[in-house]
Amino acid sequence: MLAFRVRSGKLARISKPLPSLRPNWALIRVRFAGICNTDVEILRGYHDFRRTPGHEFVGEVVEVAGLPAQRKHWLGKRVVGEINIGCRALGIHPVCKFCRRELIRHCARRSVLGIVNHDGAFADYLTLPLENLHIVPNSITDEQAVFVEPLAAACEILDQVDVKKFSEAAVLGDGKLAQLIARVLRSQLPRVVLCGKHARKLALARAARIETKKVRGDTTDLKRVKDTYSLLVEATGSPTGLALAQQMTEPRGILLLKSTFHGAAPVETWPTVVKELTIIGSRCGPFDKAIALLSSGKVDPRPLITRVFPLGEAPSAIRFGQQPDVMKVLLANG
Amino acid sequence: MLAFRVRSGKLARISKPLPSLRPNWALIRVRFAGICNTDVEILRGYHDFRRTPGHEFVGEVVEVAGLPAQRKHWLGKRVVGEINIGCRALGIHPVCKFCRRELIRHCARRSVLGIVNHDGAFADYLTLPLENLHIVPNSITDEQAVFVEPLAAACEILDQVDVKKFSEAAVLGDGKLAQLIARVLRSQLPRVVLCGKHARKLALARAARIETKKVRGDTTDLKRVKDTYSLLVEATGSPTGLALAQQMTEPRGILLLKSTFHGAAPVETWPTVVKELTIIGSRCGPFDKAIALLSSGKVDPRPLITRVFPLGEAPSAIRFGQQPDVMKVLLANG
Repeated sequence: MLAFRVRSGKLARISKPLPSLRPNWALIRVRFAGICNTDVEILRGYHDFRRTPGHEFVGEVVEVAGLPAQRKHWLGKRVVGEINIGCRALGIHPVCKFCRRELIRHCARRSVLGIVNHDGAFADYLTLPLENLHIVPNSITDEQAVFVEPLAAACEILDQVDVKKFSEAAVLGDGKLAQLIARVLRSQLPRVVLCGKHARKLALARAARIETKKVRGDTTDLKRVKDTYSLLVEATGSPTGLALAQQMTEPRGILLLKSTFHGAAPVETWPTVVKELTIIGSRCGPFDKAIALLSSGKVDPRPLITRVFPLGEAPSAIRFGQQPDVMKVLLANG
Repeated sequence: MLAFRVRSGKLARISKPLPSLRPNWALIRVRFAGICNTDVEILRGYHDFRRTPGHEFVGEVVEVAGLPAQRKHWLGKRVVGEINIGCRALGIHPVCKFCRRELIRHCARRSVLGIVNHDGAFADYLTLPLENLHIVPNSITDEQAVFVEPLAAACEILDQVDVKKFSEAAVLGDGKLAQLIARVLRSQLPRVVLCGKHARKLALARAARIETKKVRGDTTDLKRVKDTYSLLVEATGSPTGLALAQQMTEPRGILLLKSTFHGAAPVETWPTVVKELTIIGSRCGPFDKAIALLSSGKVDPRPLITRVFPLGEAPSAIRFGQQPDVMKVLLANG
């Protein structure tokens, strides 16, 4: 099969045999894979990952290592998959307290699809435990389904905060994840304000009935936005995001942190103490909520797709994805 | 009357007339004042405050500008006082939404006793609105009552987190506020661990049935304490505190931030996102809870008093308070 792997900061094309399956795992033929900023960070050395990247995908189950009933249930199904593989699925005993609570994303021994110790979706095929899979209903297209993973990360906010208690929310950042978060919040609230730097990206948000505010992304903007929002999501992916977000959140407000940029940034933490902010780190989220939002039509991420490349052109696609104003880039395994 | 004010980074002794009273305010003769790290920061230029510092006190009401019933209720009473003076008490209209919710500490136009725009307790007398005052029951000594303000700040945690849901808690830091926080938590939980650098300060905590762990206060200690606590309070007052505290808190744990050190420190925020931590800024707190804890005998802060100076020696007292292993220093207005 065709696959790409990380070699010297680039994607190298390789040919390799189909992966073998552990019990209760599935082999999945990738239909579409999405390129995420994390993939770019992996090429830069994040997690020292040298295998096949790619953790956003939609595919079709082509083999199942399991009982006849499991094979019957899964074979041929169109699926998306949760990316964290916990100690139970890896056959490590005893199962840790996080896996027992179904918080597999916090298992200290986990592998992560295309990120930690497990080959990902920039390939013809990938493998995942059956417990990670979700069937995609017919009402959702492949181009929508490939957004389930990042959309679930946006939906995590709904599990962490009772957003309906708020009359409005703001999102700081106008990139891919910020756009999905704003759409998820807009599905729950009458007013969502996306604050970003890029005119074209702000226009994309407005087309989804999201208000926008142009900010330069540094604290020189402060007077216009200080203490403005009681619910704010920081999704800039930038070192300066937290400092501005702290200032923008009103006393006793909630600030959700979604940026996983790496490296230390100078931050003054006293505004969080003085304003008694609650900062909530937020990462992967519930696939079922994301699938329901797509299926209901309340969120349609397709306008965020800038371009689709064939899987074989993955190196060009990942370079293209880093150009200004490019949003989501997909790989199609035709 | 005698008072000290900030002049060129030092406390200067002055003599001045008694302050006049607004309606519904009281004149209070200071009995004891406590020296806090914030006072030291004020001398270094924090808030650009040039008046009389001091916000921890116990005193006696000697004059009231109010109705006969108010005068009768307050005159001669031994009191402690909340330090934030909101727009209502300052006669500013309309009253802001935070003051309407009794969250005076978040009023954007507030004055703060001895910190912002209002003379504090390093003086014979101070003034405060009647609404800020709490009568001290006879079961509490003056030396205990002067701790009500910082103890209330420690009690704020009880209003922010349902600590009884946890089987244990940890406090990072071994200074005055950390010690009070550990005592408040120990009044609610069977096990509290204070993590600090200073052997003598750790011994003080052990005498109050608090477990201790010696940490160097930097991330070289990491392996011993990584992902250990589901409820942790950062009260080091140091720039490196947050980084270590983030690492010590287990996934999905709660990290309360109490340090108000000023200046930016380099912080990697991705552990908060990846571990989905909840960070809660925590500042001033409920005086009634602090008074109840002192009155019940569940918390006795007197072992934290290193030395008492006469008010007239305030400059020496504040220098003494900055020496190693010194805990609380009081000023007595005999």
